[in-house]
Amino acid sequence: MTPRRQSGRAPVTSPAAATVFTTVLTQGPVSRVDVARRTGLSSAAVTKASRPLIEAGYLVEMDSAQGGVGRPASPLDLRTDREFFLGVKITDRELIGVVTDLRSQILVTKFHQLPSRKVDAVVDGVSEMVTELLAESKAYKQRTHCVGVTVAGDVDRESGFVRYSPFLHWRDVPLAGLLAEKINTGKTDLEITVDNDVKAITVAERWFGNGVGADSFALVTLGTGIGCGLVVNGGVVTGSHGVAGEIGHIPVFGDGPLCHCGATGCVEAIASTDAIVAQARTATGEPGLTMEEVITGARLGDAALRRVFARAGVAIGRGLASMANLVGPERIIVSGEGLDAYDLFADEIRETFATQAFGAAAHCELILRPLPFEEWARGAAAIAVQTLFIS
Amino acid sequence: MTPRRQSGRAPVTSPAAATVFTTVLTQGPVSRVDVARRTGLSSAAVTKASRPLIEAGYLVEMDSAQGGVGRPASPLDLRTDREFFLGVKITDRELIGVVTDLRSQILVTKFHQLPSRKVDAVVDGVSEMVTELLAESKAYKQRTHCVGVTVAGDVDRESGFVRYSPFLHWRDVPLAGLLAEKINTGKTDLEITVDNDVKAITVAERWFGNGVGADSFALVTLGTGIGCGLVVNGGVVTGSHGVAGEIGHIPVFGDGPLCHCGATGCVEAIASTDAIVAQARTATGEPGLTMEEVITGARLGDAALRRVFARAGVAIGRGLASMANLVGPERIIVSGEGLDAYDLFADEIRETFATQAFGAAAHCELILRPLPFEEWARGAAAIAVQTLFIS
Repeated sequence: MTPRRQSGRAPVTSPAAATVFTTVLTQGPVSRVDVARRTGLSSAAVTKASRPLIEAGYLVEMDSAQGGVGRPASPLDLRTDREFFLGVKITDRELIGVVTDLRSQILVTKFHQLPSRKVDAVVDGVSEMVTELLAESKAYKQRTHCVGVTVAGDVDRESGFVRYSPFLHWRDVPLAGLLAEKINTGKTDLEITVDNDVKAITVAERWFGNGVGADSFALVTLGTGIGCGLVVNGGVVTGSHGVAGEIGHIPVFGDGPLCHCGATGCVEAIASTDAIVAQARTATGEPGLTMEEVITGARLGDAALRRVFARAGVAIGRGLASMANLVGPERIIVSGEGLDAYDLFADEIRETFATQAFGAAAHCELILRPLPFEEWARGAAAIAVQTLFIS
Repeated sequence: MTPRRQSGRAPVTSPAAATVFTTVLTQGPVSRVDVARRTGLSSAAVTKASRPLIEAGYLVEMDSAQGGVGRPASPLDLRTDREFFLGVKITDRELIGVVTDLRSQILVTKFHQLPSRKVDAVVDGVSEMVTELLAESKAYKQRTHCVGVTVAGDVDRESGFVRYSPFLHWRDVPLAGLLAEKINTGKTDLEITVDNDVKAITVAERWFGNGVGADSFALVTLGTGIGCGLVVNGGVVTGSHGVAGEIGHIPVFGDGPLCHCGATGCVEAIASTDAIVAQARTATGEPGLTMEEVITGARLGDAALRRVFARAGVAIGRGLASMANLVGPERIIVSGEGLDAYDLFADEIRETFATQAFGAAAHCELILRPLPFEEWARGAAAIAVQTLFIS
C-alpha cells in the first residue's frame, strides 16, 4: 500500500523551481525580474526554473503573443485550469467536497451526510464524493490528479495515517492508503494526501488569504475542537513529530477539568462547543440543553450561562497569549463555528489576552474572520496543490 | 544616535552568499559541490557567492596550494581568525565577557561584578569590559568590529532598546545607542548589537551545539528567569513584535499566583528561583531561607520543601508540553542554573510533560544539558557574528 506516489506531473524538480512556482501562484502575474527581486534568485535561475513550468503548461507568459518568448519582462502567470484539485473535509457529521483550480478558486461544492463515523463508512463516503465531483465535468475527470482529505486531530501526512481523531473516535487509521485502495480502481489513479484540517486551511490562508505577506501568523479555529495553524519564518509549522498548533491542548486551567485527550486543564476542556454545552447543562441543571439554547439563554442575560461563556473566553485568551508569548506571530486570525457566539466572550478574550501577553507580544493583531464550511474543503484542496511541489 | 551601522566588512551581499557562508560556518570544511548539494544552490551560484568571501579572507580553500584556485572539489573552510567578536552577557549581579573567533570558539573569558543595576553603571561596566577584552591581544584590537550584548527580557534588536528587563528593573532603555556612544570614542568604531540572552544562546546552539542538524528545537533555561529559544523551519523565532520564546509566561496555573509581569499563573511565578524561594519561605515560615538552603532541605527530605519543587516541576512540565503541542520541536534542551535542583523536580517535569503532550508530541526528546556561565557570553558573541550577514 503506497498512499503517496510521486506524480511527476508538475516539473518542480528543484528548490528554485518551487520558489518560482509559489511566487507566481501567490503573487502572479509577476515578471521574471520581479520574481528574482522578491526571492533573491538570480534572473538566470528564474528563467531556467520557469522554462519547464511553461513548457508543461502550468505557467504562461502573459504577452507572449506580442513579443519574443522568454523575454525577462513578460509577466508570468498561472494557467489556473491546467490541473484541477479535489478537497474533502471530514467532519463528525458530514463530508464537504470541492473542486478547485490551481489557484484554489472553488468551482464546485458538495455536501454529503455521513451515515456513521466508522472507518468503512467514511472511506465509502469520500470515495463517492470524489466520483461525484469528477463527474461534474469532463475536464475535471481528465485533469485531476491530486486529492486532499482533511480531518481534525493528529494526522501524519507522510505516512497517511490518522493517528488520533477525537471526533471520529479513530486511532491509527491508515486513511490515505484505504482511500487510495478504494478510489484507484480501473483507470483512476489519484494521489491522495491526508492532513490536519487546520494546517490545511492555514496553507490556503497563507497563499490566498489573510496570511499573504505576513512572515508569521496564526489561524485559530473555535468550535467542536480548538485548533491552530501556524506560519513561522515563512513556512507552515508542521511539527517534527507531526503535531503542531494544538492550542486547544495548552493547559491553561491548571488542575481544571479533564480533557478528552487525557490531560487536564486544556483550553478545549473549557471552551470547545461540547465543553460549553456540558458546563451549561451542569450550571442550569438542564441535561437536554443544546448549544443554540445555551447561546440564546446567555444573550437573554442568564447569569449562569454568561459565566460559562466568560470562563471560555478566559481560557481562549490565555491560549492566544501563550501562543503570542511563545511564537510572536504578526497577527492571529480567529475563526471557526465558535465565532457564532463571539459576542458572548469577546471581551474576556481580549482582556485576558491583553493581561497575559508578555510585553510587546500584546501588539499582536487579533482578526475575527468567519470561515464558511466550504473554506475547509478549499483548505483540503490546497494540500493537494501543495503535493505538486513538496516531495 | 545610530546604534546599528552596516559594517560592509564581510561581503555577504546576497541570500546565496549568506547561505554559503552559514553552510561553511557550521559544516566546513565542505566542498563547493557539497555546499550546492546541501543548499539547493547551483554549483555556479556557490562559486560566484564564495569568490568575494575568499577574496576578503573569510573563507579559504583547503588544498589551494596543491591545485588550481576555484576547483569545485577544493573544500572551503572558515578562516577562523579573520575577525574576532566580543560577547557580553549582563546578569543582575555581574558581566560575563568573552572574545571568540569566527566559529565561536572562546579565546578569553572575563567576569566583572556589577556595582549597581542602574543604566549608567551597566553601560560603564560593559564599556570597561570591552576595553579589557580588546587589550588582551593586538590582533583582537585590530580585527574586532562587532560586539554582541545580551540581557534577559524583552529586547528589540532592531532599535537596540531593552524594552523590559525584570531583573535589572529596566524599561525602554536604548542600550545599543548608549553603549555605542560610550565605547566609540577616538579611533574605536564597533558595531554594537543587543538581543535577548536566550535567543542569543539559541543562535550559538543552532550553529555549533545541540541544534546542529535539527530543523526545529527549543532551548529552555531554568533559573532566575525561565526563557526559551526556538528554532522552527530552520530559523530562530524572533517574534514579529520582538517577543518570542517566553515559555516562562505561559499561564499554566490558571488563577495561580501573580507574576512580576502583571499576569497570573505564569510558569515563572511558580518555578523561577525567586518563586521557589518565596514559596519555600511561606511553607516553612522561615523568611531568611536561601535557595541553597531550600535545595539542601528538600534533598534531606523536608516534605514542605519537596512539595514546592514538585509544584515547580508540574509548572515546567506544563510549559514544555504547551510548547511541544504548539510548535512540535524535534527536541527540547533544558538548561540553566535551575538545573542544579533538577533531581528535585525531574520526575514531575517528565510525568507532567508525558500527560499533557498531545499525541505524538510526547515523542519530543527532552535533553538536559548544563550551560556554563561563559556559554551565555558566547551566545552574545554569536549574535555579533550574525551581524556579518543579517542586514
